[in-house]
Amino acid sequence: LQNNNNSVVPLLNPIIAGEKEDFLYHFGISKTKDNIPAAFGDVKFVCTGGSGPRMALFAEMFSKEIGVPCSDNLSKSDRFVMYKAGPVLWVSHGMGNPSISIMLVEVIKLLHYAGASDVTAFRLGTSGGVGVEAGTVVLSTLALNGELQEYHIQYILGKKVLRPSPLSHSLTEELAQLAKKVSVPVECGKTLCADDFYEGQARLDGEFCAYTSKDKYDFLHTLYEKGVRNIEMESTCFASMFRRASIPAAVVCVALLNRMKGDQIHLDEETYNDYEMRPFKLVTAYIKEKMKSLQ
Amino acid sequence: LQNNNNSVVPLLNPIIAGEKEDFLYHFGISKTKDNIPAAFGDVKFVCTGGSGPRMALFAEMFSKEIGVPCSDNLSKSDRFVMYKAGPVLWVSHGMGNPSISIMLVEVIKLLHYAGASDVTAFRLGTSGGVGVEAGTVVLSTLALNGELQEYHIQYILGKKVLRPSPLSHSLTEELAQLAKKVSVPVECGKTLCADDFYEGQARLDGEFCAYTSKDKYDFLHTLYEKGVRNIEMESTCFASMFRRASIPAAVVCVALLNRMKGDQIHLDEETYNDYEMRPFKLVTAYIKEKMKSLQ
Repeated sequence: LQNNNNSVVPLLNPIIAGEKEDFLYHFGISKTKDNIPAAFGDVKFVCTGGSGPRMALFAEMFSKEIGVPCSDNLSKSDRFVMYKAGPVLWVSHGMGNPSISIMLVEVIKLLHYAGASDVTAFRLGTSGGVGVEAGTVVLSTLALNGELQEYHIQYILGKKVLRPSPLSHSLTEELAQLAKKVSVPVECGKTLCADDFYEGQARLDGEFCAYTSKDKYDFLHTLYEKGVRNIEMESTCFASMFRRASIPAAVVCVALLNRMKGDQIHLDEETYNDYEMRPFKLVTAYIKEKMKSLQ
Repeated sequence: LQNNNNSVVPLLNPIIAGEKEDFLYHFGISKTKDNIPAAFGDVKFVCTGGSGPRMALFAEMFSKEIGVPCSDNLSKSDRFVMYKAGPVLWVSHGMGNPSISIMLVEVIKLLHYAGASDVTAFRLGTSGGVGVEAGTVVLSTLALNGELQEYHIQYILGKKVLRPSPLSHSLTEELAQLAKKVSVPVECGKTLCADDFYEGQARLDGEFCAYTSKDKYDFLHTLYEKGVRNIEMESTCFASMFRRASIPAAVVCVALLNRMKGDQIHLDEETYNDYEMRPFKLVTAYIKEKMKSLQ
């Protein structure tokens, strides 16, 4: 129903497709020793975010909201956590493209072995706003790499490979419409995916800073003019990998601050928790609506 | 004593140097609200590795070995863990260059605010061996990026910046000598720092694989001929950042498998634990020797 083609999650590697065993090392799950179809066959939604404890909390809250039990942590490795509540898988991804790339490869393989179909994916995260106020949830229209190109950068066999990093237009539109109903302040825009938190995001408060305050603001204004509304660290990989696997995907990140006004994040705990809940509120509203129409 | 110049950890950012407050967001530590000099002023060694629970275990074991108490987790954020035992800080870094870059920036600033001097840094990790047998500890002579250049790649203000990524020759030599005494099998060699675990390391068992088995082995042979002995995911950032801060640094990673023989990691728990302990055994032997000479 989500992608209107009743499609099973694909395995795009003819070599591993011919192997009997596959051990998903960073989850500690085995294709032959674990019953993957029984455990994951009904997954329709993947929700991911950086922090393990936050994902555990989101899974628990969601399970209570829909009145189904939440699984224990299904990851047998300490690298990521994974919880299942109804048709939704909640998985942490750590920080940065390399970290999320490992998780995505293994989750997509897991869903393929499970025979899961019609899956939709969401990244629920935090970010720095570019000309948007703190608390605004940015719905990413596409992800830009550090050279401001619409590609995820990989290095394969010693060579640079560029992978397009668009996000699902229709899914983002649906989320934007729904946001009005559930009173979550949103803005649609491009997302800059940085490879670090400090120099890569033109912050003035890192260990190293060879540029000036003027350089920083010039850069942020350039970003704004290009349509960028926030900066985070996983969107190019997230966008490009789900695109390759033909799974509709959305990046839903709240801005913790407006980078036009500063670099450091100073929020009292209540405000922080309120902001952090906004992507959850919007994405779970979407999922609950889809679950109704699936029944 | 370690770098022979009695040097205080520097802050290489004139802008933040002029600010009264600095909040180390990913550790939840404040320059003004926490007593950083009292807590961290005597740090002489930073030991870091990917997994939080592994770092906690290492810190606990080390504290018992040297007969000093181990701190609680000093990180107030859920992104990284940080423990202190005597003059040694044990910190997790997650997976990949972007993740470790955040930790390193904040730890170097922390040590600067602490007034720490003569610090030496170690990454203790796991890796895929290139023509070396499983269980071998590779001492990295330098780190190569995905294009096989001796640089860490950053993107700053929209432009690519290359940072040299050598490692301390004298420190690596000292570790290699000590390894014989403590019976840890080591090999010195270059390290390829990949940005993902699958395509970036020419694995045949990922979700995506557009190359052949022959392409993979040709690539591994090219690496071997260039002097590469292992592949991991954090060494270019680790090397370049500590080099910029003039802190001697070593990458000490055990090979969990020989990639010339396969891609998947199948080790029984006992063997895995034995291998995982080898970098710890070597690095702590080094630290204990230096602690004696410091007394």
